[in-house]
Amino acid sequence: MPPFFTPNPGATPTGPRLGTLHTSHGEIQTPVFMPVGTAATVKAMTVDEMEALGAEIILGNTYHLMLRPGEKTIQKLGGLHKFMAWERPILTDSGGYQVFSLAQRRKLKADGVEFQSHIDGTSYFLTPERAIEIQEALGSDIMMVLDECTPYPVSESEARKSMELTLDWAKRSMTAVLRSRGSFVGDHPSQLFGIIQGSIYQNLRKECVERLLDLNDTKNVNEKRTTSAIGGLAIGGLSVGEPKEELYAMAAHTAPLIPAQFPRYAMGIGLPEDLVELVGYGIDMFDCVVPTRNARNGQLFTTFGEIQIRHSRYAEDPRPIDENCACPTCKKYSRAYLRHLYMAKEILSSRLNTMHNLFYYLSLMSQIREAIRKDQYEEFRRDFYRNRISADDATRE
Amino acid sequence: MPPFFTPNPGATPTGPRLGTLHTSHGEIQTPVFMPVGTAATVKAMTVDEMEALGAEIILGNTYHLMLRPGEKTIQKLGGLHKFMAWERPILTDSGGYQVFSLAQRRKLKADGVEFQSHIDGTSYFLTPERAIEIQEALGSDIMMVLDECTPYPVSESEARKSMELTLDWAKRSMTAVLRSRGSFVGDHPSQLFGIIQGSIYQNLRKECVERLLDLNDTKNVNEKRTTSAIGGLAIGGLSVGEPKEELYAMAAHTAPLIPAQFPRYAMGIGLPEDLVELVGYGIDMFDCVVPTRNARNGQLFTTFGEIQIRHSRYAEDPRPIDENCACPTCKKYSRAYLRHLYMAKEILSSRLNTMHNLFYYLSLMSQIREAIRKDQYEEFRRDFYRNRISADDATRE
Repeated sequence: MPPFFTPNPGATPTGPRLGTLHTSHGEIQTPVFMPVGTAATVKAMTVDEMEALGAEIILGNTYHLMLRPGEKTIQKLGGLHKFMAWERPILTDSGGYQVFSLAQRRKLKADGVEFQSHIDGTSYFLTPERAIEIQEALGSDIMMVLDECTPYPVSESEARKSMELTLDWAKRSMTAVLRSRGSFVGDHPSQLFGIIQGSIYQNLRKECVERLLDLNDTKNVNEKRTTSAIGGLAIGGLSVGEPKEELYAMAAHTAPLIPAQFPRYAMGIGLPEDLVELVGYGIDMFDCVVPTRNARNGQLFTTFGEIQIRHSRYAEDPRPIDENCACPTCKKYSRAYLRHLYMAKEILSSRLNTMHNLFYYLSLMSQIREAIRKDQYEEFRRDFYRNRISADDATRE
Repeated sequence: MPPFFTPNPGATPTGPRLGTLHTSHGEIQTPVFMPVGTAATVKAMTVDEMEALGAEIILGNTYHLMLRPGEKTIQKLGGLHKFMAWERPILTDSGGYQVFSLAQRRKLKADGVEFQSHIDGTSYFLTPERAIEIQEALGSDIMMVLDECTPYPVSESEARKSMELTLDWAKRSMTAVLRSRGSFVGDHPSQLFGIIQGSIYQNLRKECVERLLDLNDTKNVNEKRTTSAIGGLAIGGLSVGEPKEELYAMAAHTAPLIPAQFPRYAMGIGLPEDLVELVGYGIDMFDCVVPTRNARNGQLFTTFGEIQIRHSRYAEDPRPIDENCACPTCKKYSRAYLRHLYMAKEILSSRLNTMHNLFYYLSLMSQIREAIRKDQYEEFRRDFYRNRISADDATRE
């Protein structure tokens, strides 16, 4: 079986690196940003548009899909790819994050978590095994273990307790995946990612990586596997309210602890500058609702920083959002028109803004990969900040 | 100057007919359906999609645009076509209908109508002259006179009073248009359409047409014009609550009263069967929010009738909306997926449903024109109803 992940040969353990993820729905070039397609659609976008934008992978939310329309319905209709007509890879989360942030009447048990749907109050019980079963029913290319996303702030002893739960669930998830992989036929089975918790405690982050790797090695030996139970490692519990320096420090500390053969995924990150920083620490994968959600709220990303399109200064501004942008929105529409659509709450506002923001994010990642390829990442990073600082005041917020 | 409207030579005064409208933004083949783009966007659609659908003209709402962003802003930005990046013709209404249905604290005066914006309570005074001024600022290809859309039911004397007001305003609108046309340079000036009121009273409808034509002739003679002050006539006050037989009877009665050289426009009409019927009476132009608004509410039009996509029977239905439909939605997505998007209130639901319904309406008009061209309109009409009746129950609502 070909490897799931091939980092570029010259990569140092701590710096920015290029790589390729191999899935049965195609290859993904890393570092990669994964647009979020919560309920079987990247909000406001068609799959044709996502393909034209060059998105190589999107994320689906297990919590939302298990509630509506239900993973069994999606499975009957041929899986999530077919259901939403998206032919490229899909990563699904475990549902855990949303259970802890969206669901009602939550009861955490050793076995899993009981909760009621925020849509209609129906009761569910999500366990590590169920999370795998659902993700397998969806036909996910990359599955995540059920974890508890440790909140912030939290004491070290509480962070440890939370981490122990996540490690226990990771072990059970690995067992579940290896069991179903026994019957797998083909080149690229669905991959499972472990999740590193530990809040802002460096010793816990380190211990969590080591114990996840130990679990994986033990599983591999016990099951006499030539391939790994886990395909990658994610850093969870970041961007949950901690100061930006803590986020960056924790990513910089944790990334090099992850062996080079595993793709490194920073969950729920982030703003453009976060991507630029974390790629510098060796992170390969990102996802975030920011480009899509903020687009719907009128925040637009540009080379010179962010603008709020609702601002009255744009009411008669005939210029595109960003004169340096080649996206379909900037090629055709003025700030004045986009402001009007936003003020009038038109659906087209969400469409054109989302198109622009995703184009910005995906272009940024493409520029990042190009800079690494040319071994000019520091120059790229410097220019990224310089463009923001030097922008003419009149074009900015 | 080339004529604004050229009906096909063989047209009888009462039957279905083909024609061409000539504007400075291009030609329009009639009978035509005009999708409604209220606030400078056909809701949920891009102009590229509208062009790809083959829409030859869209409608803009003067009331909405004068309130937000204001016609002066649109004029500064190069007019409505440039503002919304739509290069084909635009018809604008006068704003009257929305003043009478949406605005607050309305006071009808002989001069015009005073009202407060439903958005922020700002006071406005709309007169026949102001309605023309605003539509000219927008750069409309076809302008409508300010009228009072007579409500239903109404006594004959009330209907007459309302008609007299509309006739007085029509006279003032013609004067305003001829004044600004004095300075016009080019091939196709903006056209003005008169509006026929008279509720369900045949004698009033007849009198209204005659007096509008008299006004027009007098204007033309007084101003020593070789061209007409008005370019077409619309039948207003239909589909305002009257029984369907009354609507059809009134359209059938009024259409042949309009001389053949004027395009005949049935305002605010209608359902697919209304288009099929009214084309049969010689109507050339239609507009209606039904395909777009109903799409957002989950009602989808098909050759076999309408379906409500929210219905649970579609929850696991892998078929497209209509297996005979070649629209982008039907080529790619299942009823099950469309139902899911609708239930989850996803923006993509409005997009895909609107795309389908507009494709259906515009295809219907294209089939109608083809049937007239082949002199097979009665056969077409019979098949239209037969397809609905013979549909398999399982595919229907």
